[in-house]
Amino acid sequence: MPVPIITLTTDFELKDPYVAEMKAAILSICPSAVIVDITHEVEKFNVRMGAYMLASASPYFPEGTVHVAVVDPGVGTKRRPIIVQAARSFFVGPDNGLLILAAEAQGIKRMHEIASRRFMLPHVSRTFHGRDIFAPAAAHLAKGVPIDEFGPEITAVAKPKFTKVTRGKDALIGEVLHVDGFGNIITNVRAKDLENLKEGALQAELHQFEFQLKFSKTYAEAKPQEPIALIGSHNYLEIALNQDNAAIKFQAKAGDKITLSVA
Amino acid sequence: MPVPIITLTTDFELKDPYVAEMKAAILSICPSAVIVDITHEVEKFNVRMGAYMLASASPYFPEGTVHVAVVDPGVGTKRRPIIVQAARSFFVGPDNGLLILAAEAQGIKRMHEIASRRFMLPHVSRTFHGRDIFAPAAAHLAKGVPIDEFGPEITAVAKPKFTKVTRGKDALIGEVLHVDGFGNIITNVRAKDLENLKEGALQAELHQFEFQLKFSKTYAEAKPQEPIALIGSHNYLEIALNQDNAAIKFQAKAGDKITLSVA
Amino acid sequence: MPVPIITLTTDFELKDPYVAEMKAAILSICPSAVIVDITHEVEKFNVRMGAYMLASASPYFPEGTVHVAVVDPGVGTKRRPIIVQAARSFFVGPDNGLLILAAEAQGIKRMHEIASRRFMLPHVSRTFHGRDIFAPAAAHLAKGVPIDEFGPEITAVAKPKFTKVTRGKDALIGEVLHVDGFGNIITNVRAKDLENLKEGALQAELHQFEFQLKFSKTYAEAKPQEPIALIGSHNYLEIALNQDNAAIKFQAKAGDKITLSVA
Repeated sequence: MPVPIITLTTDFELKDPYVAEMKAAILSICPSAVIVDITHEVEKFNVRMGAYMLASASPYFPEGTVHVAVVDPGVGTKRRPIIVQAARSFFVGPDNGLLILAAEAQGIKRMHEIASRRFMLPHVSRTFHGRDIFAPAAAHLAKGVPIDEFGPEITAVAKPKFTKVTRGKDALIGEVLHVDGFGNIITNVRAKDLENLKEGALQAELHQFEFQLKFSKTYAEAKPQEPIALIGSHNYLEIALNQDNAAIKFQAKAGDKITLSVA
Repeated sequence: MPVPIITLTTDFELKDPYVAEMKAAILSICPSAVIVDITHEVEKFNVRMGAYMLASASPYFPEGTVHVAVVDPGVGTKRRPIIVQAARSFFVGPDNGLLILAAEAQGIKRMHEIASRRFMLPHVSRTFHGRDIFAPAAAHLAKGVPIDEFGPEITAVAKPKFTKVTRGKDALIGEVLHVDGFGNIITNVRAKDLENLKEGALQAELHQFEFQLKFSKTYAEAKPQEPIALIGSHNYLEIALNQDNAAIKFQAKAGDKITLSVA
Repeated sequence: MPVPIITLTTDFELKDPYVAEMKAAILSICPSAVIVDITHEVEKFNVRMGAYMLASASPYFPEGTVHVAVVDPGVGTKRRPIIVQAARSFFVGPDNGLLILAAEAQGIKRMHEIASRRFMLPHVSRTFHGRDIFAPAAAHLAKGVPIDEFGPEITAVAKPKFTKVTRGKDALIGEVLHVDGFGNIITNVRAKDLENLKEGALQAELHQFEFQLKFSKTYAEAKPQEPIALIGSHNYLEIALNQDNAAIKFQAKAGDKITLSVA
């Protein structure tokens, strides 16, 4: 029998004992689980950023992995706790869009509400479903409990709101999806969106900044401080400065609009 | 034989290799140990905050878990390294109060000093007992070494200094125990302390701020920015702002005095 | 068969999903691997600091551990991916000096380039060799693939540039290697460099600060705020303030010059 892997993606940070309590709940139910943190530094309540993180990392995990994600401003209200079974993985978390970007990338097979108290901790608080509902559900899934025992099948779920790239006559308008720890600006523009724009150089506008972007295969082949465009490891267009912080230089943050045209 | 779980609670942060060295010491002695971080971001030298973190998370771990905690301003002095056997868990760390809040909540069965060099690393530094004494002791406990082999039984240990809630004629005076990553203000006031105060609304004083607190079962059912009181997942009274940071708004930090009365 | 341990040392931080993707790549190839984070908070692109962290923690891990380190400003260029087999451990990472301080401390037995595509992920990006090359190589090593199957043996590799301690007539000139989370100033001066300087008290110069350093065996035996010198747990001279932050007081950061003489 394979080792069950359970991943965690939250906005809880690591200062507080919350993440440890989720792990304790998992290990109490499924002691052989291997638990991997994707990140606990999703911006607070930023469901879109959580969805992006989960969709970025989940493709690299083995088949059968159970992904738990908790970015949950509606905890304790009527938003449902759900399990999504996709082609290669299970996703467990709130029905607020957080799980769907990653699950749709694999292909969704079925979805169930978590309703049965049998698979929750004995006392379910109103403020911490990560520990009391989601982590235990993941541990029971990892132990082999069939998805339909958790609660009724559902069909309609909340979708994450991602801005689509729009096309003007000579330009693409996208947005900043994420700024990583290196200051790389990750946009929602994918390689295929750029097909009509000649490779070589792009003209970019971001806030008050207008700058040329040279396409580059690596960070290091650019001159120091030169803005470069590259298709990052997740297939999105990234804007980087070689050994410097592009996000600081261009004051970029998630949600900012960016316009791209042929230079 | 069950998988031995060892948890770590320290003020070491994750930037330095110190936590990894503790894990290396554990795995060298007990390769099958599952190690779980509770937190490494206890405020430096803040034994009370460490005690609170450990007491918060430890109840969720399975029976037999070995909890190592190191917030240790007296490292290298005569303060003793100890093991506390409680009803469900072992606690390993310095004799400075850090372990006792969590252990007393389970019920203490016996306590021993760690004196035998057999269960320490070959070279014991004067500055890093987490790696050289506490982690190895936990690993040997997890492997089944009986507690009385580590050193002599002891009876008197240091207690953590927690302020008790005091009762005025119409008010309770408590203090801020912890500010979590969401800005929730966690107080030392427990649900049962509030029995004589009518549920519904409280009047709170914190620094120069006076504000009404409405009791709420969840964060989300409050209006945006409205101060709410709730009994958090650890059974303490918390003050929160829906989707905002209460600690910043009310300038709250651990140790601040808070006064509560009927609104 | 022993449990294979794989450690990770990077400058990726924990906010982004990059570290999780490395772990996913490892577990996909070697599901029984126990993965331990040494640190992911090496200063960006600071190969020397990464080398120091790895050399500090690696001696505590069991024989056979595979250490992966990625601080890699040259990713995607012609710098080679390498495996270094040392007396007790394997080291996997870029050929930029990062691995060599730790490996030489054990004694290097042989070194190979990672050239075979068989041991990489199917798609190798130009920007993330940690996930696509180094983590998979470590997982295959942990599974028992012989080092010579990865690629050709090599002999010359890049060395990390560490400043040597220099000796004046009455003084030693060293530098700050690292400032830890407690504000302890860790220098490149080793215990044996100090043999000719009388124990008891040193005179130190750091930036505009001149101060006496009393040798102390522990942090706690000094007076509050008194500067103390001690030989830290890694055998380097450290400068500390008892329960205070020496690095802030003396404005110390990695690379600063420090002069020591008899007081």
